Amino acid sequence: MSVMADLLGTLFERRYRAGAPDPRALPELSRALVEARAEGPGGELARALLDRYAAAERDERLAWFTFLAEEMDLDTAALTDALATYAEDSDPEAYRRLAALSEPPRQELARRLNQVPGATAQLVAMRADLLSMIPDAPGLQRVDLDFRHLFKSWFNRGFLVLRPITWESPAHILEKIIAYEAVHEIHSWDDLRRRLEPADRRCFAFFHPSMPDEPLIFVEVALTTAVPGSIQALLSEDRAQIDPGQATTATFYSISNCQDGLAGISFGNFLIKQVVRDLQRDLPQITRFVTLSPIPGLCAWTAETGLDWPDDGAAQAALAAHYLLKAKGRGTAPRDPVARFHLGNGALVHAVHSGADTSDNGRRQSGGVMVNYLYDLDRIAENHARFHDDGTIAASRDMVSLAKRAPMPRLEQTETT
Amino acid sequence: MSVMADLLGTLFERRYRAGAPDPRALPELSRALVEARAEGPGGELARALLDRYAAAERDERLAWFTFLAEEMDLDTAALTDALATYAEDSDPEAYRRLAALSEPPRQELARRLNQVPGATAQLVAMRADLLSMIPDAPGLQRVDLDFRHLFKSWFNRGFLVLRPITWESPAHILEKIIAYEAVHEIHSWDDLRRRLEPADRRCFAFFHPSMPDEPLIFVEVALTTAVPGSIQALLSEDRAQIDPGQATTATFYSISNCQDGLAGISFGNFLIKQVVRDLQRDLPQITRFVTLSPIPGLCAWTAETGLDWPDDGAAQAALAAHYLLKAKGRGTAPRDPVARFHLGNGALVHAVHSGADTSDNGRRQSGGVMVNYLYDLDRIAENHARFHDDGTIAASRDMVSLAKRAPMPRLEQTETT
Amino acid sequence: MSVMADLLGTLFERRYRAGAPDPRALPELSRALVEARAEGPGGELARALLDRYAAAERDERLAWFTFLAEEMDLDTAALTDALATYAEDSDPEAYRRLAALSEPPRQELARRLNQVPGATAQLVAMRADLLSMIPDAPGLQRVDLDFRHLFKSWFNRGFLVLRPITWESPAHILEKIIAYEAVHEIHSWDDLRRRLEPADRRCFAFFHPSMPDEPLIFVEVALTTAVPGSIQALLSEDRAQIDPGQATTATFYSISNCQDGLAGISFGNFLIKQVVRDLQRDLPQITRFVTLSPIPGLCAWTAETGLDWPDDGAAQAALAAHYLLKAKGRGTAPRDPVARFHLGNGALVHAVHSGADTSDNGRRQSGGVMVNYLYDLDRIAENHARFHDDGTIAASRDMVSLAKRAPMPRLEQTETT
Amino acid sequence: MSVMADLLGTLFERRYRAGAPDPRALPELSRALVEARAEGPGGELARALLDRYAAAERDERLAWFTFLAEEMDLDTAALTDALATYAEDSDPEAYRRLAALSEPPRQELARRLNQVPGATAQLVAMRADLLSMIPDAPGLQRVDLDFRHLFKSWFNRGFLVLRPITWESPAHILEKIIAYEAVHEIHSWDDLRRRLEPADRRCFAFFHPSMPDEPLIFVEVALTTAVPGSIQALLSEDRAQIDPGQATTATFYSISNCQDGLAGISFGNFLIKQVVRDLQRDLPQITRFVTLSPIPGLCAWTAETGLDWPDDGAAQAALAAHYLLKAKGRGTAPRDPVARFHLGNGALVHAVHSGADTSDNGRRQSGGVMVNYLYDLDRIAENHARFHDDGTIAASRDMVSLAKRAPMPRLEQTETT
Repeated sequence: MSVMADLLGTLFERRYRAGAPDPRALPELSRALVEARAEGPGGELARALLDRYAAAERDERLAWFTFLAEEMDLDTAALTDALATYAEDSDPEAYRRLAALSEPPRQELARRLNQVPGATAQLVAMRADLLSMIPDAPGLQRVDLDFRHLFKSWFNRGFLVLRPITWESPAHILEKIIAYEAVHEIHSWDDLRRRLEPADRRCFAFFHPSMPDEPLIFVEVALTTAVPGSIQALLSEDRAQIDPGQATTATFYSISNCQDGLAGISFGNFLIKQVVRDLQRDLPQITRFVTLSPIPGLCAWTAETGLDWPDDGAAQAALAAHYLLKAKGRGTAPRDPVARFHLGNGALVHAVHSGADTSDNGRRQSGGVMVNYLYDLDRIAENHARFHDDGTIAASRDMVSLAKRAPMPRLEQTETT
Repeated sequence: MSVMADLLGTLFERRYRAGAPDPRALPELSRALVEARAEGPGGELARALLDRYAAAERDERLAWFTFLAEEMDLDTAALTDALATYAEDSDPEAYRRLAALSEPPRQELARRLNQVPGATAQLVAMRADLLSMIPDAPGLQRVDLDFRHLFKSWFNRGFLVLRPITWESPAHILEKIIAYEAVHEIHSWDDLRRRLEPADRRCFAFFHPSMPDEPLIFVEVALTTAVPGSIQALLSEDRAQIDPGQATTATFYSISNCQDGLAGISFGNFLIKQVVRDLQRDLPQITRFVTLSPIPGLCAWTAETGLDWPDDGAAQAALAAHYLLKAKGRGTAPRDPVARFHLGNGALVHAVHSGADTSDNGRRQSGGVMVNYLYDLDRIAENHARFHDDGTIAASRDMVSLAKRAPMPRLEQTETT
Repeated sequence: MSVMADLLGTLFERRYRAGAPDPRALPELSRALVEARAEGPGGELARALLDRYAAAERDERLAWFTFLAEEMDLDTAALTDALATYAEDSDPEAYRRLAALSEPPRQELARRLNQVPGATAQLVAMRADLLSMIPDAPGLQRVDLDFRHLFKSWFNRGFLVLRPITWESPAHILEKIIAYEAVHEIHSWDDLRRRLEPADRRCFAFFHPSMPDEPLIFVEVALTTAVPGSIQALLSEDRAQIDPGQATTATFYSISNCQDGLAGISFGNFLIKQVVRDLQRDLPQITRFVTLSPIPGLCAWTAETGLDWPDDGAAQAALAAHYLLKAKGRGTAPRDPVARFHLGNGALVHAVHSGADTSDNGRRQSGGVMVNYLYDLDRIAENHARFHDDGTIAASRDMVSLAKRAPMPRLEQTETT
Repeated sequence: MSVMADLLGTLFERRYRAGAPDPRALPELSRALVEARAEGPGGELARALLDRYAAAERDERLAWFTFLAEEMDLDTAALTDALATYAEDSDPEAYRRLAALSEPPRQELARRLNQVPGATAQLVAMRADLLSMIPDAPGLQRVDLDFRHLFKSWFNRGFLVLRPITWESPAHILEKIIAYEAVHEIHSWDDLRRRLEPADRRCFAFFHPSMPDEPLIFVEVALTTAVPGSIQALLSEDRAQIDPGQATTATFYSISNCQDGLAGISFGNFLIKQVVRDLQRDLPQITRFVTLSPIPGLCAWTAETGLDWPDDGAAQAALAAHYLLKAKGRGTAPRDPVARFHLGNGALVHAVHSGADTSDNGRRQSGGVMVNYLYDLDRIAENHARFHDDGTIAASRDMVSLAKRAPMPRLEQTETT
């Protein structure tokens, strides 16, 4: 690289004087940034690239991602050579060379972009764009694998901060809670206040220190004296509030991921367990931790299976129990995505309730049936192990009995749907 | 892995009940942690490993690092195979497999350890141990390369937070500033106060959000009306304070790295430039940014070169100028480490002063001579580029002239020392 | 007082054990509290009284205020005696006795109530109740004078804290801003965001440290490039935002007092001047500080004066100018309350605009006319002094001319309305 | 007051332009400030007075306090008149006039000075000056009574904030803790750390929101498993730390008032009780709250009483018990000032220990004997009531017995010392 090229990339003070945007296109800027000396300031070059990206249309972005996939890929020839050397003699210098070559330059590019204060959120948004393009350009998956690899490091649980979300939280955070709630829509600020302000309601979110204005995931909790069986009753304006000191049960009734660009980086398991710990510490008399969860795949599965949806609540519940305990997706995994999440965390299927979600969406996806998953602290480790080992689905006895009463014409077939 | 093995690794709630430490040794714990399901809680296993490490003697730690180097290394056979597949057809699945195999399992181990809240500082301390063992066990360099790779991601500049350090900072931070000051020792709390409390003194440190009690690097700054030429005068108890609004010059008179475990992860360049920006914004009348720096290698070089140390201040200064501008270390790099740092950042050699550091250490390392490096915002990018391109050392005209007057018997020889 | 009586009053730990409310009525509790030893804990007695008050109906409250007026009044006989003694010989002991007697016991009662953490807001609410009862019970004015005396000390400007109100402020504060806005109603959270989030909008409130969740007064500010003449244009959803660095003018378009119980404790003057200082410091290019204010008394005055409201905007403006400059209330004070406030602060009448407030309320109170008061920093002290000295109303030349063109049939009469 | 006089007082913007100090002397500035219109800005006048005071020598300050005592005193003639009117007919207007006249103008002056942000600390320091002058000028007590009256309102317990003081507190606060410790000197920052950092040590201070950098009073607490009997053992570098969860006893071993200017405004009682509550909440297993207190008056009393100081520890203890239970100061109050404080709060004399304070000061004032006062939550209200009612001193049975064994030649005489 010539002096002049490096110069352009290192004019850190330019922003304070000229202000004219860097005229180069995204690929040129990318090359310049990756090639800049490790010790160089580089801030302005990264900023220029981020600004350019922010101003680009979808086509330009797609072209850039394609450039990253193809032009900033591994150098397989050099890597093969370095690997052979290392396989022969594992000396540190050989390892250094191998390590350097086994990572495509686009990873270093992303790390350098992230040196700009505030860039993390932009990189997350960038991956959201990328994910939306993959269906039409599967080759971009390679770029996504690198993003994902970096994000797993950056959003490591050790770096996340749990914050309670209350009615005293900043409004610009709360409006994001309204926007990101993906399970039971928040209809207004008044609706939000009803979920945050009462003493028997809690909400917690994970944040990353570099994105302090952006929740990553949040969970809404109701403190109750029994395991609830209706989301509308739970959220009713007229419900009777209780003193948190009287609660015996914490019900997780909504968990929402907030960042499309962090798809596949899972926070939910850590969130639930951290919240369980915090609640146990603050309210030791709470001994039961359950969810009140949707069963998003129930109606679709019923339709595929050719089953008629029963009118009778008891039959609906039995059908739902059967679906949760028996219907499989890929391999031994449960077909239902919410079931996969909670059972994978070590929860068990505790109870199902017909008529539990009378909203349009609730009726459409599960005929109004909802389920409680129970986080039984004495059994969670064993449940988790068995689930991952051979797909065993933990369930209460009642649920096992109930599932057997499901009106299934041809059981064998549905098991392998 | 059997159900039982996974079970042991996932008893997240154990800590809150039993309390008995996990009896397994570090290698067993490491294997169990790396093999635990990605989605598993794992917190307790990581905690157990960290606790075990904390309690281990040096021998046990060395054995574990050796285990990491040898047993948690790359699987070169599988990697060779995956690479061949990918080289043939760069499809996403092949890339995923290649990516997974091109990283040794010890990297994933470190990421999982870091899932424990508060673990980051422990991992940094772990690497400090490791670095101290490498002279006797060079094979551990491979492990260190992986630590370093991860730390470069985790301590990416975008994640660092600049905080002013003042007399109103928490005492437990300030005692670390006293302990970590590596250039001009802080002798007492009163001495510290003299460097922090006056309106014409500043101090700034970088912190990482996961290590809020541990500064990573800090710089001490004096606001002055001229470029200073004596560290004792600058730090004198009797010096006249000035109103910051009258200052024309910001002098960086001490920069200290705080974490041995972050050796090689460089923050200094970013720190200086961020502080320059912040000072420019708050005190726009300050137009000159210089250092008052030690020349740690001067006397050693004089001795090696067979030169006699002159009594005369002017001759001392000329010799120092020659050393800074001409004496080379590896390749075209300056021999002096502090010079390498500032010149590599784009600064220039501005002036030298004899009798500038009359402390024992100052006399010993450089016969009392000190140097000002100037961060000239109009020339910094060019200086930086030329330095990295061909080793050109930027210097003021006075310094170039002065260096020529150095009492050098045989100039050619010294240039290649 | 018997041991037993004092005992009841000092059972500070009761709340943590028994929990049964103190059965005594407000007057008994008041006597016990006032008579408790100065050094006694007393917390529980004060808490009991506050709880009792909170649970009381209006009748019980009225009876208690009457008790305070009559039974906790000055002891005029003892005071007369103490005064005579002091008038004869002003020795410290005589002064101490006089001072103690010249304050009615209800003041000490209020101070003791305020020893309970969090009680300040309750005392402010208490005075709001009291004020609402005074029209029917004028004797309670004596109690109010004591409240007011205490509140002037407690809410001394030196104890107030100015806080910016932004879209990042806590929601429970923002909902109070919505509720308390008294000039131009905030219709929704979206409306609020439009007033807080844009870079060219500001809002500031005074808080008292003991009432951190309750704004006392707030002002809304628009940064503009000209003196605005229409509130609807200023608040329009479609308005063009400007960069704050381009603003030349800060327009105070709404000032609202929040606490009925602090009526007569004036904060507005301090608030405006503090905000002017802060804006000058942060945005030194802003040189003009004006209001866009309602003229609440204009139509009522027109009606009383027997004037017909003109259709013509110019005539409306002239009439408004005349009203602001000539119509008097009590003594030499302007009749218009908003005029009294700003002129009393040292502002001048700068301009009037017809069609400036087309809301129902704006049309009703002032036929849509609004006024700009100008805070001219070079003239504010003189304006203030002349206004308070002889009632001189400062006004721009244009306004003086305009007022002369008002369609007034008999000028003399209106001047003394 | 002429326009010109008011003008001078209200030039609030002057400070930002001219900067020349107001040339008037303190009395003139005082008159101008008191006479300025209530609604006027006044900030600059108050600032000028505060600046003038800060720059004044002791003589000028004394002259000003004398001016306040004599020239800003009550107008007894007008007050007599207003009182007569009110005594005849208690109408609100008469009350208003009486209330206004029954407060000397120097009180309003102090309130107006306090309108300047940050002035509160200056007013507190002013009173410290004043108190130091009273021995030579007793007439100034009248001024002090007014200061004290205002400060009782301003520093009302409801406005105070309890903050833990830890090793993570700001250094500029901690250096004040070192400076203000009045009971057991803190010798160095290391000594301070030993009192703050261990998990079984606590420290709490009251702050006023307007003086956030100045503690008002603080208490140091040791968490222990028994009632301690030696301050040197309690503070020993080599002592064994305990887990706070194991503590049964909280020992208050040092309470220091920090502000001379707040003499007579008592915070200690509130502080102890608040700390007891907070500790009970956080560490419910702690059931015993005691002090380890000096007996500052013991040796002086022994000397006055003509008693020989015994060599024998048991006799020393008996003598101390007798002194604490029997020796009287004014009226029925105990002679010992620390005893007066704790007994007045409702504590009881629990135990005495010879050889408990082997420092020079400890030997000098009490021959090394110390005392534990016990805050027994079940008896505190009763103790408090009886103490204030008839001077009954609560004590453990052991102490009563011990006091009887004191080697007293003529008991009757000492009781009335």
